[in-house]
This record gives sequence, structure tokens and C-alpha cells, in this order.
Amino acid sequence: MRSYNFSAGPAALPEPVLEQAREELLDYRGTGMSVMEMSHRSSEFVDIAARAEADLRELAGISDEYHVLFLQGGATGQFAAIPLNLTSAGDPVDYLDTGSWSQKAIKEAGKYCDVKVVGSSKDESYGFIPDPAQWQTRPDAKYLHICSNETIGGLQFKSFPEKSVPLVADMSSDILSRPLAIDRFDLIYAGAQKNIGPAGLTVVIVKKGLCGNARPETPTFLDYATQADADSMSNTPPTYAWYLAGLVFAWLKEQGGLEGIAKLNERKAGKLYSAIAASNFYRAPVDKPYQSDMNVPFTLANAELDADFLQGAQARGLLNLKGHRSVGGMRASIYNAVPEAAVDVLVDYMAEFEQTHA
Amino acid sequence: MRSYNFSAGPAALPEPVLEQAREELLDYRGTGMSVMEMSHRSSEFVDIAARAEADLRELAGISDEYHVLFLQGGATGQFAAIPLNLTSAGDPVDYLDTGSWSQKAIKEAGKYCDVKVVGSSKDESYGFIPDPAQWQTRPDAKYLHICSNETIGGLQFKSFPEKSVPLVADMSSDILSRPLAIDRFDLIYAGAQKNIGPAGLTVVIVKKGLCGNARPETPTFLDYATQADADSMSNTPPTYAWYLAGLVFAWLKEQGGLEGIAKLNERKAGKLYSAIAASNFYRAPVDKPYQSDMNVPFTLANAELDADFLQGAQARGLLNLKGHRSVGGMRASIYNAVPEAAVDVLVDYMAEFEQTHA
Repeated sequence: MRSYNFSAGPAALPEPVLEQAREELLDYRGTGMSVMEMSHRSSEFVDIAARAEADLRELAGISDEYHVLFLQGGATGQFAAIPLNLTSAGDPVDYLDTGSWSQKAIKEAGKYCDVKVVGSSKDESYGFIPDPAQWQTRPDAKYLHICSNETIGGLQFKSFPEKSVPLVADMSSDILSRPLAIDRFDLIYAGAQKNIGPAGLTVVIVKKGLCGNARPETPTFLDYATQADADSMSNTPPTYAWYLAGLVFAWLKEQGGLEGIAKLNERKAGKLYSAIAASNFYRAPVDKPYQSDMNVPFTLANAELDADFLQGAQARGLLNLKGHRSVGGMRASIYNAVPEAAVDVLVDYMAEFEQTHA
Repeated sequence: MRSYNFSAGPAALPEPVLEQAREELLDYRGTGMSVMEMSHRSSEFVDIAARAEADLRELAGISDEYHVLFLQGGATGQFAAIPLNLTSAGDPVDYLDTGSWSQKAIKEAGKYCDVKVVGSSKDESYGFIPDPAQWQTRPDAKYLHICSNETIGGLQFKSFPEKSVPLVADMSSDILSRPLAIDRFDLIYAGAQKNIGPAGLTVVIVKKGLCGNARPETPTFLDYATQADADSMSNTPPTYAWYLAGLVFAWLKEQGGLEGIAKLNERKAGKLYSAIAASNFYRAPVDKPYQSDMNVPFTLANAELDADFLQGAQARGLLNLKGHRSVGGMRASIYNAVPEAAVDVLVDYMAEFEQTHA
């Protein structure tokens, strides 16, 4: 029996995707081999790779102005790759600080650039996103970096500012969860392990004009221009993860694309936040306008009940609800692949727990 | 039906490993989720990761003097990570050139160091390995780099020299194919996609004393000390590939470990090279003492028959025998997971083709 998996990442994948992967695991469509046994140069894999890219472009409305790269190293790899590709030593770059993942990106960029934190809600426990009108951006910054959804804090941009310098966004934990205003961005990147596929794959969507000026010390496999020229096969790509991502993209198209999945995600998150708001026992730490549809942190009125809550949840097949150690309490990550039924069972359990423990 | 897959990489995996992966794909041992859906911090995955490392250490006899890291970026990533971790800007490093993969490593290292090519058989079409006594090594080199098996050329070290500077080896295409004299090396690295598991995982075995002095510009996810401190989980690792590697290690133990698999590999390669040597139609380009047990390149007496040969092979389920474009002819990659039966069928087919076409 499948559990209800609220893991923050690596996270739940769509069951039909896993079923198809199982079906094809030893013999991909009559080839007599697994996708993971295929040369990345084989016509079968080249087709798989191209179809995945085409489906992603269609889903997210990505024009030919952008390269779509399938790389290794995760978002953490991109924390370094972005300054290495887009700047020269000591260049000014602007970063907004909305939580733990912003901070990691800021720290890594500091190894390569003159980083300015243009706004932060750190002193207010990251309960909101600072007003864009107040960001102290620099006109000569090479780019402005934001994290569209803070996985740990549960804070999400609901709209994106128009800015005069290239906008770079870490979308690891909410990419493909809603329609993407791609034109607003110059570079979007995401580790796959929330809404795309298994860990070990990184998607980078980057304006072609930004590529081609990587620093000499950039490891070649992180050089956007080199990878774009080679269709992300300058070195052997993570082929099986790429294939699974393609299955996820095809599944997303069947869900009505990003509009369809966004409706489902809003409904799922709405049920959970409503239950929290209606209760005197549970509390959401993030201000309502910034509450993430992907990661829903909440605390119990009495932290001494946390262990009981988690134990009861586990007994009902509701797994991985423990909040991040830096925040405490609970966190339900409800990515695209987490079914609405999981949220329903969780909401029922929360009500029951409140009745018996409040 | 499964094909006989002679792909150079990504390459064949053991069928029992794929069967177990299929069995566990939607529900890993009663957890109700796939391994690829598990947090890397979960107790289940931490167990999987630790068991894989322990099995690898046992198989290869790796002592506590070495870190074993499970990283992303492939051997190509290590071409940069090695100088970034082991040297300062402009430091002298020595490289032996025995083929295409040596050359790629040399080119990347040249971005970071003063590289000296201490020996090369390039002018002799990489038909042999230059005599270690003739290598023009430098006593002040930070390390000496070799490629233990050239995948494209089909050239393999049968023994390793004792040298006075740290010895670094790219073992991507022959790691775990035979017993490993680990003490001879200071750093061994390998992309997984030949003898370890699927593409997207890189294993680095490095002496602890070499870690901790990475250059400031090293992307954090490539910093050996950082990754070692975090059990290779400084950032999200490629969890599913790591799990599959663990299944491969367990399978290898069942084959009698590296001694057992080495006997099988010698027998497989022996059959193929004997058939080539006994024929006037096929020719092996590499001198006998250096012929690889993993990658067996051979040419036909008449290159115009290549297409016919490949077509007939495909009709018999013998796939991916086309040689690399830089070498031409054929190449049979017979890694650990390629069954002896595949070699038998290939040898029979080669004899038949010679009879009908010579």
C-alpha cells in the first residue's frame, strides 16, 4: 500500500509515472534494455531527451529565446554556476533574503561576487516577503536573485516584480506548480526532486543572450554555453532522471497543464490553511498573502504534543510531517504529486487530534 | 526479451539488480514509497546509503584512511574538482596521456594548473602504454594522473607503477572489474555508468589527508572536505542512483567479489580477443599486453562491411557494437554486467560473418 508522503524533497512522484517506469524498467518499448542502460547518444535516448524538453517548453511556454538545460549538481550547484556563468570576479549582484534557501544562495555567491542583500525579513522570522518597492537594488547589478518559494519557511511569491536588471529565480520547490510568467525571468533553475523527478537532475532555463561569457575557472560541465551547444550532453547526463522527468511532464499535460495543476494545488493548500485558520490549536507562522501552496508549516499550541502528533499521523500512513529542525513544529509538503486525498486525510486527522488533545 | 547490450556507457546493468529495483519501485520494503520519493535524511535512505558505502569498502578493501564520496557531475566534473581540491593556482601537476579520456582530463586541468604530459602514445595511435620508467615526472608535482582504462581506445593498465607523488586515477570504465590495489592510490574516481550504476552518480575515493584545502572558488558541492563531513549529503545527493549502486555492490558480493568477477571478465575478454587473434579478418588495434578486458575494439578487414556487420548483429540482439567515431570499426564493451552468453553469441556471429563475407 502506498503511503501519504509529505516529504519536502526528495518527494512524492505521481503514481502513474512510477507505474510506467516499473512497466518499462527491464525493457523500454521493445528495445530489450532499460533506459538506464542506454547510451545517451542512442537514438532512443535522444528521442526521450528531446521529447522531455519539448513537453517542458510547451507546459511552461518557454520560447526559443531560452535554452533549457538538463544538468547535474542541484540548486546548490547552481548557486555557484550562476555567478560563474553570468559575472566577472567582484561584479555587483543583488539578492533578496526570504529564508534558508536565499541565505545559502547568498553565501555561495559571496565567494565570487560583491553581493548585496537588497531586502530581508529575517528579523521578522521570515513571516512575509519585503515589499519590492523597498528593495535597495542597484542599477549596475548583473542580476537580481530571488527564491520563488522557500521550502523550509513555507513562504511563496504570488506575483513577481518587474525589475531593470536580469531576474534570476530559484524555483526548486514550486516550478511547474502554476503557470509560469517566463518572460519576467532571465534565468530560472530548479533541482528536480520536488515537482520534476528524482534527485540528481537540475533544470536550468536561461536566456540565450546571457550565455557564452563563463569565467575561465568554470568547470566545463557547469558552463551553460558548452552544455547548450551539446544539448546538455557535453558530459554524460543523468539519463534515467531525465527520462523520469519526461514522464512527469507528460503526466502534467494530462492534468490540464500548469493551469490544471494550479487549481488542484490551490484547492489542496486552501483546505489545509483553512483548517489551520479555523483552529485555535494550530498556527501558521507565515502571513496569509505569502503562504506557500507547496510547503505548509504549522505549529501545535503545545510543542510537547509534537511527538504524539507525528506518531498518530504515521499510524494513519501520513508520513514525513516533521518540520525542519530550524523551524520546528510540522510541515506538510504538498507538491503536484501529493494527491488531494492525502490532504483530506491529514485535515481529518488534525481535527481529531485537536479534539482529543486540545 | 532482453538484448545483449555492448554499450560503452551508460551500459548494461545486472538483470537481478533491475528485477529487484522493479519489485521495489512503488513500495520499498513496506514503506509505502519508492526510494526516489524518500528524503535523503530519512532513516531508510540513510541506511541504504551507509550499506552501499560499507559494501563498496568491503569489496574494494578501502580502509578508514580514505573518504568514499557519492557525488554528482561525472568524471568530467572531477576533471575540474581534482585540481580545485588538490592544488593552488598554477601548481605543477603531471598527467599521462593514453587516449581520449586522458586528453579530456588534461585539457580541463590546464584551466587550473601547470600541466605536464609526462608520457604519451598518441603518435602511435595509443596502441600501448608508455613504459613507466620513461615517464618524465616531476618530484614537485602535486599529483600524477592516469586513466586506468581508456573506454574509447580499449587500452588498460594491467599493473600500476609506484610513484613518489600522489597517484590519481580515473577508473570510470574499469572500477570493480578486478581486485583493487587501493594502497597504491591517493585518489580514485569513477562515473557510475559502466560498472556501478546509472549515470548521474560519481564515486570518489580519496585519502583523508588530501582533503580540506580546496580553493576558495571551488563550488561547495564539489568540495571533498565539505561533502565528507556531511556523508556526501551537503546537498541532496542522487538518491536513486546511490540506491541502485548499492544493489550492484550487493550483486557483486554474490559473484564472489572482485576476485570472482575478475575471473569472469578475463574469461569473457579472453574468448573475444582469442577469436580476433585467430582470425585474418578481424584485427585488434591495441598491443596484446594492454588490451582492455572491458572495452574490446576491433576492425573488419574491409570497412565497407561495417554496416552489414552491425545490421546482422542487431538482428541477433547484439546491440551497440559500433566503434567510437574517433576510432571507427567495432567496439564490444563487456562490463561486469554483460553476461558471458553475450560474448559467446558475439563470437559465433563473428565467425559466421567472416565465413560469409571474407
